[in-house]
Amino acid sequence: MPASALTILDEKLKRIHTLGSIDGLLGWDEQVNLPKESKDQRQNQKALMALLVHEANTDPEIAKLLAELEDSRDELAESEQVIVREKRRNYDRTVKLPAEFVERCTRTSSEAYHAWAKARANNDFKAFAPYIQKHIELCLESAGYLGWDDRPYDLMIDNHDPGMDASTIAALFSELKTDLLPILKQILDSPVKPDVSIFKGFPVKKQEAFLKDVTKSLGFNYERGRIDISLHPFCSGNGADIRMTTRFHEDNPLDSLFSSIHETGHGMYEQGLPIEYLHNALGQAAGMGVHESQSRLWENQVSRSKAFWKFYEPKFRETFKEQLQGISSEDLYLAINAVSRNPIRVDSDEVTYNLHIIIRFEIEKKLFAGELKVADLPEYWNAQYRELLGIPPKNDAEGVLQDIHWSYGSFGYFPSYCLGNMLAAQLWYAALEQLPGLESDFEKGDFSRLLTWLRENVHQHGKTYYLKELSEKATGQPLSPKSLIRYLKDRYLPLYQ
Amino acid sequence: MPASALTILDEKLKRIHTLGSIDGLLGWDEQVNLPKESKDQRQNQKALMALLVHEANTDPEIAKLLAELEDSRDELAESEQVIVREKRRNYDRTVKLPAEFVERCTRTSSEAYHAWAKARANNDFKAFAPYIQKHIELCLESAGYLGWDDRPYDLMIDNHDPGMDASTIAALFSELKTDLLPILKQILDSPVKPDVSIFKGFPVKKQEAFLKDVTKSLGFNYERGRIDISLHPFCSGNGADIRMTTRFHEDNPLDSLFSSIHETGHGMYEQGLPIEYLHNALGQAAGMGVHESQSRLWENQVSRSKAFWKFYEPKFRETFKEQLQGISSEDLYLAINAVSRNPIRVDSDEVTYNLHIIIRFEIEKKLFAGELKVADLPEYWNAQYRELLGIPPKNDAEGVLQDIHWSYGSFGYFPSYCLGNMLAAQLWYAALEQLPGLESDFEKGDFSRLLTWLRENVHQHGKTYYLKELSEKATGQPLSPKSLIRYLKDRYLPLYQ
Repeated sequence: MPASALTILDEKLKRIHTLGSIDGLLGWDEQVNLPKESKDQRQNQKALMALLVHEANTDPEIAKLLAELEDSRDELAESEQVIVREKRRNYDRTVKLPAEFVERCTRTSSEAYHAWAKARANNDFKAFAPYIQKHIELCLESAGYLGWDDRPYDLMIDNHDPGMDASTIAALFSELKTDLLPILKQILDSPVKPDVSIFKGFPVKKQEAFLKDVTKSLGFNYERGRIDISLHPFCSGNGADIRMTTRFHEDNPLDSLFSSIHETGHGMYEQGLPIEYLHNALGQAAGMGVHESQSRLWENQVSRSKAFWKFYEPKFRETFKEQLQGISSEDLYLAINAVSRNPIRVDSDEVTYNLHIIIRFEIEKKLFAGELKVADLPEYWNAQYRELLGIPPKNDAEGVLQDIHWSYGSFGYFPSYCLGNMLAAQLWYAALEQLPGLESDFEKGDFSRLLTWLRENVHQHGKTYYLKELSEKATGQPLSPKSLIRYLKDRYLPLYQ
Repeated sequence: MPASALTILDEKLKRIHTLGSIDGLLGWDEQVNLPKESKDQRQNQKALMALLVHEANTDPEIAKLLAELEDSRDELAESEQVIVREKRRNYDRTVKLPAEFVERCTRTSSEAYHAWAKARANNDFKAFAPYIQKHIELCLESAGYLGWDDRPYDLMIDNHDPGMDASTIAALFSELKTDLLPILKQILDSPVKPDVSIFKGFPVKKQEAFLKDVTKSLGFNYERGRIDISLHPFCSGNGADIRMTTRFHEDNPLDSLFSSIHETGHGMYEQGLPIEYLHNALGQAAGMGVHESQSRLWENQVSRSKAFWKFYEPKFRETFKEQLQGISSEDLYLAINAVSRNPIRVDSDEVTYNLHIIIRFEIEKKLFAGELKVADLPEYWNAQYRELLGIPPKNDAEGVLQDIHWSYGSFGYFPSYCLGNMLAAQLWYAALEQLPGLESDFEKGDFSRLLTWLRENVHQHGKTYYLKELSEKATGQPLSPKSLIRYLKDRYLPLYQ
């Protein structure tokens, strides 16, 4: 009985997955190819796909199948239990929200997005403030429907990283902040000053060829994916067909290179999920934090390392002979690992990035606890930036209005970035320990042992283990900021003396 | 009552249209972007979309709405009657075919396609022959379901060009053949011999820029469409978002230029259909013949003209300075209008092309009438090529196996190509007469008057008039080969003396 219920459920999951993958392609094409005046048709296409996905996700037959499978839970294999558990989670979170409420959320998001874009352009926080308030109220309302009334912000976090909660994160971030600030001070006080303005006139075609070469060597499978150009880099699709994007600036070759490597990390995670299970939890990512750990590990621990550049510097110089003339190896490596005070999160380096996240997390936590009023956000934001980063933003546009996330009511997402940084560092030291001589592989341009290790310890598990459990399984240690601190010290202190 | 039924029907047509447009994007992306190993997922996506389109098309509610609307036909505006008429046509042709039969057709097509590809590679007609037989039998079976038992080949033609039939075509083609053969003889007997091998090393990037410039000037709206690269050129999408493709060869710049202009003609037709009605018959193409008339008119009558090249030759020479050194204007123009004996339809010029089509039409007609056996096809084919084109194919691979159409059972399609050539020439002379000085516009790179004329006389009507009626409405003359003959004489005889 459970076997046949499981087969029927799996068929339904396949349909949902296929519909979702079509929707994903529409989204990718919109960012990469869509002609300017073809937007209306794309909106119609996406609205119809969203409806079809929603109908498939809330099929009442699924409730019956889940009930039947849960009744005979003991007869299911462990992996089958994971499939049922995850579909239950997803089904309840979809079906318990009234259609009218979902529509209200969609409408508010759309209105708020436009209000945010306008407010940012006009540097006018007050015009956007009511929408933040509305979004918070909607989040509280959703917590009510889903039975999380007593801890609505935990629900927001759990939506992005299952099993994670605000008090766990608060403890992790507090430790991280304490240990990170003195390191940052040391770096910023150092007489060593990186100069990232040394790069001029790097032809786009050559940048493209170089980054394709690099990402291929790292292990991205271009037979099951591709990279194109869009305004902001992203990674979409699934392991059967990954669509990454990057962007090019002639005077900033490191931006497209590292953003491509970052997306490649996301892409290789998806490509490492078991391809026969992409439609169910066994072949889907564990959460945002784990996803981010993969992009960060390849971007930072691997590709900003001395070992990596020992192999790639000669190739980089061969490709950009003229442009790199007169730039010493030391200056190049320092620019690759430049740390600076930057008020903008997305432009910041891997040291200060964590502080940007901690500020946002503390704000969200206070907002949901009623300890901070929306009207007081800019003041609190600026004070935090002054205190932690030493740079009060010039205005709200480059301050509290800088990120898109709150415009569509996405709370609980920011912490995942920093949790990902922690896990990345933790995985890094576990791999270094278990794979002796790993960095000498990198010096020869060989990254395969690390990828294999990640496939085995992270990718193959799909959603079986969430962030906390995965950290213990893969590294033997609970999730903690210790490895991240160790890594930042190892990498940055020698460089900045 | 009919008003509300019409509104409901129109909503259903919108849904069908949107689903179809998504399916179209999947098909385009498959030819243009899809990574090699991502094919399985794309097959799943396309199968699901085909199912959804089929379900939407055969919605039983549509039958009720159509019956209601047909009952109160007199209360409908003319344009509304067109919408109802066309949905009836489409609904009956979809719903009257049993699901089991449709599945059998799909399966046979897929098997036959692979058998054809293999047979062509191995030059082995016998291996493919049984599939042609099967396809014919399926066509006869479909004619039975749809009530066309007495004239199944007419159904095949009507599927591509509504209102057209084999005896009308036979009369048109017979006249065309009689008048065309002496013209071809004059051209081929001429001492003037074009040389298309004079083009060497045309950089692809420059070809691309040049053809974009040309197609934009002709009137293609790149804000509602784009052009990319694929193995075989095609035009997909709809007026809200046209996706054309081309291909590039460094030693054959005219191939990508003229194939792009050809697809641009298709694209501009779609872009000229009323955008508010893309989901119903008022905003959809009249048929394959009319579609082909638009691609051919821009490709041949316009873009192979002296007037066109008076404007574009200097630009072409400026773009490809080195490559065109030593090539005289006369040799260039002769290469653009080269006529030769070529056994392959898709590589043939606009004079001989019609003979390739006439041969295929006569074969299809005889096959359906039982006057020709499948086993005798190669012999008949080779005899016809010897007689009409003076070139018996070297083997069946470059003979009877050359086209993809029969591999998926597409009979009745070929004639549309030649009907399109006729209509193109007829439209050309009508436009020249009604728009004095049109060719001097071309000499200045201005094609807008012609496009406006086509918008008014062809595009805006959607499916209101079929090929025959449209020809009379737009040119004041019934469809006939006379203009095509006149045009071929006007253009080619002076050139080949």
